Amino acid sequence: MLSTCLATALLMTTGIHSAGMLPVNDTATAKPKYVMVIHGGAGTILKSQMTPEKEQAYKTALEQALRSGYTILQKGGSSLDAVEAAIRVMEDSPLFNAGKGAVFTHEGKNEMDAAIMNGKTLAAGSVAGVTVIRNPITAARAVMEKSQHVMLTGPGAEKFAKEAGLEIVDPSYFYTEERWKALQKVKAVDENKTQLDHDADTTHKTSRLGIENKDNKFGTVGAVALDRQGNLAAATSTGGMTNKKYGRVGDAPIIGAGTYANNATCAISCTGWGEFFIRLCVAKTVSDLMEYRNETVQQAANELIMNKVPALGGDGGLIAIDKNGNIAMPFNTAGMYRGSVTEDGKIEVLIYK
Amino acid sequence: MLSTCLATALLMTTGIHSAGMLPVNDTATAKPKYVMVIHGGAGTILKSQMTPEKEQAYKTALEQALRSGYTILQKGGSSLDAVEAAIRVMEDSPLFNAGKGAVFTHEGKNEMDAAIMNGKTLAAGSVAGVTVIRNPITAARAVMEKSQHVMLTGPGAEKFAKEAGLEIVDPSYFYTEERWKALQKVKAVDENKTQLDHDADTTHKTSRLGIENKDNKFGTVGAVALDRQGNLAAATSTGGMTNKKYGRVGDAPIIGAGTYANNATCAISCTGWGEFFIRLCVAKTVSDLMEYRNETVQQAANELIMNKVPALGGDGGLIAIDKNGNIAMPFNTAGMYRGSVTEDGKIEVLIYK
Repeated sequence: MLSTCLATALLMTTGIHSAGMLPVNDTATAKPKYVMVIHGGAGTILKSQMTPEKEQAYKTALEQALRSGYTILQKGGSSLDAVEAAIRVMEDSPLFNAGKGAVFTHEGKNEMDAAIMNGKTLAAGSVAGVTVIRNPITAARAVMEKSQHVMLTGPGAEKFAKEAGLEIVDPSYFYTEERWKALQKVKAVDENKTQLDHDADTTHKTSRLGIENKDNKFGTVGAVALDRQGNLAAATSTGGMTNKKYGRVGDAPIIGAGTYANNATCAISCTGWGEFFIRLCVAKTVSDLMEYRNETVQQAANELIMNKVPALGGDGGLIAIDKNGNIAMPFNTAGMYRGSVTEDGKIEVLIYK
Repeated sequence: MLSTCLATALLMTTGIHSAGMLPVNDTATAKPKYVMVIHGGAGTILKSQMTPEKEQAYKTALEQALRSGYTILQKGGSSLDAVEAAIRVMEDSPLFNAGKGAVFTHEGKNEMDAAIMNGKTLAAGSVAGVTVIRNPITAARAVMEKSQHVMLTGPGAEKFAKEAGLEIVDPSYFYTEERWKALQKVKAVDENKTQLDHDADTTHKTSRLGIENKDNKFGTVGAVALDRQGNLAAATSTGGMTNKKYGRVGDAPIIGAGTYANNATCAISCTGWGEFFIRLCVAKTVSDLMEYRNETVQQAANELIMNKVPALGGDGGLIAIDKNGNIAMPFNTAGMYRGSVTEDGKIEVLIYK
């Protein structure tokens, strides 16, 4: 136990907490095992643009999501149940770009994607472009457990969800005034450009593809967990990009890009400029760096988020937890809504660098 | 040069050609560099079920595809142009489950997927669930080069293809009597089961997901190439599974699962039971085994196809070419339509083990 704690402490010394808002007790013996990490999106999240009320609302929602997962894990429940529960809380909140808070496409619709993966069996499920399923993450889990497939899309995925007995809602359920206004503003600025989540004051950067991206926040939610049986699970859910066109699919529902879990390595959920995460297979590469180059979860996660993704011109972040309860939450943006909970129930939520 | 030849020879000694139908000259100095490899699907392809005429038709089509790519490479053209040209030949042939020869979904439609990737830039493009684009591979390339996105799906992808000026056809263009009969036969046998490509006489196996799969052939086409500038490219196109439902997407259009290319390692195109290839991120893992564990392209390809995929309960094959012109074409099924061409223009096509 002591050696485990020491090892954990060594792995954590370069961890995100050292750069976080809240001070962390760094003594080796006090370092408990993490059991769950969540994110609510990365991007240009600046304290100067945040009201105290809004900041508190995000923190409260993140804590609620963490508690919903932790309650399951504490009772000996599965990491799959825990990540699904945490994601559902964030999907049901209008604060995050997933489920209820999903952004609008160019056509004024809410098209959502989600994925889930079981680290024990490598079973996986995902849905893309769904518009009437209240909780896309639960649809992804149904695909994993009740179909022979991994990825279902569009009306076909919705038909499957209905047959599986999932909660179907009218598309108007996903309407929020804030997201609708964001779409109108983006369309007014540029009818042809696809914006990420909501508009920003400054042009963010030009990608190697020559596209200007006036990003500020990448709206995605994610959760990774380790249960008492030693099983890892990962889940991700998103509303995509404001003003997105052409049935665009990002990294969230793509196994290996935005979501991956393998008991032999770790569980990962990404948030960021999806196209870059797809091209690099970010989630699977984190796992492969651990498996084939013996990197720690933090080394592997940092390699992707601090080196490979920005080298291509992309940005974002990820959360990961390994089989020993070590975590990583790197991001190369101004902020990332994120939080963690340890096996003793200690919850931390962070927003800025 | 000599050392390169010797190294190539060493890499080739365990290659597929030793198990192929046609004898290959194994002397080290006679081993030329490969520039392109293609496949037309793997599965239960048995000589006992093939007529000499059909066998010849497949070989002729494979040779035509290889020649179309080789002509481009020989003139100093790009590997991207070469793989697109080879895939278009196979898409335009009714013999392969892609483009003109696509199988039918449960609803009696032809829904196609395709992906392409540039090993030099890691740029990638894919389309999924398209029904009116004559050459889905060309749509995937347009997504890569003319949009800021990687993956477009369904009607949105078709709208994009129309705006990009690609050839649009009536869905009836994809009707072939053989595929239609295959759908009716499958539906008659089991209204609820999804079959792969066409029916077989024997039950193939039961996957770990508990689904019986009376597979025989996995219909997908793929091409990988190395051009004189040292750039690698990969492309894959498919009509999916006969009787597929719910907007199912397989591995072909998923970057990292069925398709990947990186000049630092290799270019890969897969064919097989897509769900297993997605869960393992087969294409990216081949690349990662080379990059992070210094495996040869053949070691890495064999690890996936002979070990990891069957260990999960899946089957299929892949083609790969590395930056030095070494190739791998492993498959764990009875056969795989495949062919290669060397820099001196020598074409070989193979079907069975």
